[in-house]
Amino acid sequence: MPKTAGIILVGNEILSGKIEDANAAYLCRELRALGVDVGRITVIPDEVRLIADEVAAFSRAFDVVFTSGGVGPTHDDVTIEGVARAMGVPVVRDPYLVELLERYYRGRVTEAALRMAEIPEGAELVGGETVRFPTILMRNVYVLPGVPEIFRAKFEALRERFRDQPIHLRNVFVSIGEGTLADFLNRLLEDFPLLQLGSYPEFSNPEYKVKVTLESRDRGYVEQALADFLARLPADVVVRVT
Amino acid sequence: MPKTAGIILVGNEILSGKIEDANAAYLCRELRALGVDVGRITVIPDEVRLIADEVAAFSRAFDVVFTSGGVGPTHDDVTIEGVARAMGVPVVRDPYLVELLERYYRGRVTEAALRMAEIPEGAELVGGETVRFPTILMRNVYVLPGVPEIFRAKFEALRERFRDQPIHLRNVFVSIGEGTLADFLNRLLEDFPLLQLGSYPEFSNPEYKVKVTLESRDRGYVEQALADFLARLPADVVVRVT
Repeated sequence: MPKTAGIILVGNEILSGKIEDANAAYLCRELRALGVDVGRITVIPDEVRLIADEVAAFSRAFDVVFTSGGVGPTHDDVTIEGVARAMGVPVVRDPYLVELLERYYRGRVTEAALRMAEIPEGAELVGGETVRFPTILMRNVYVLPGVPEIFRAKFEALRERFRDQPIHLRNVFVSIGEGTLADFLNRLLEDFPLLQLGSYPEFSNPEYKVKVTLESRDRGYVEQALADFLARLPADVVVRVT
Repeated sequence: MPKTAGIILVGNEILSGKIEDANAAYLCRELRALGVDVGRITVIPDEVRLIADEVAAFSRAFDVVFTSGGVGPTHDDVTIEGVARAMGVPVVRDPYLVELLERYYRGRVTEAALRMAEIPEGAELVGGETVRFPTILMRNVYVLPGVPEIFRAKFEALRERFRDQPIHLRNVFVSIGEGTLADFLNRLLEDFPLLQLGSYPEFSNPEYKVKVTLESRDRGYVEQALADFLARLPADVVVRVT
């Protein structure tokens, strides 16, 4: 079961501010809910060498890697070539993908469109049962498209592969600022060093000043930490616990 | 004048899907409008070593670097320490920032809050004329907070530093798919190899199928490329030119 994930967004259009990526935020939420820690997100241009370097580094660093973007038929779609170069294999044309494309284009498939039948040699095709085109998986790297609707449909078809032990989360909303809260957080971490502890100030929220998050894969550990934290905080500063 | 920029988002809260970052997309749009190319965005956890490695690499690779997040008074605010380590200098307390914090907290400033007066030794304080707190600039690295309202206010106070030769953009919306369009794009790039050429399919837009973007710092080059591209395309596939 994968415990850590990395996300690589390939896209000049994101770096140049033309579009706002929605795939990374979606994937972070989904993976978190499945119990997978996302360790890093990177956004890089549509350049084969950069993609190859990043894919190679991510593939070593994380259990599973997702790429988004750069998989169409035009000159700037070079993700497959980048993944192949990262793994030291050539790009080959997959007969099954050729067949799917010929069916999709009703026999009038152009040479350019056939670029979408290219895969890194040795890649698998996965999750094709419920979506029109399967996803290319090269070792631990899932190659997904940038278009959000298709990205999501393809991830949905794969999601159960990534389910792990859930991460338990409790939230404490407090009416004091971080300057005062910091000491309480530091003392909590001394007693619960394995706790994932977050502190998120809100500057324009009338209800609370900081949201504190307590997380762990061990539910008992989170609940014990929460009880200790609440026992130490002055009762009138706790706005809400969820 | 900076021509290239890198953006480092420090934040477990983004990686764990708790919040969606808005700062990178904002900064990409703003920098593009100013004529600066963003070369890379990375999102990393609140860990000193990771921040230090990334800041060091980005500082070498780009003319200017922006960090977002990790600059408050709590245990998970370690960006300043990461930047200092990247540059091989210690963290020191800045007397002017101490004074600003004492004024802000009306004399009741906690030891934790004083962490916000810490800077990498040798850093400058810039852009403090129009916002409450100046921005820490360490060599070519601007350290900005994660809270979007403050991030934007601070960037606004600095923006004229980054103005460069503008990048000229023309958009062509076409009613054919990328499979057919690809050949036209490839031929355009053969004649205009320095053109930044993007191709963005829309799968659920009734008006057009692909938006093609033509860009360069040289306005004449873009206009010439546009004229050539339009002359080659069948007239009935061009939906709109902007």
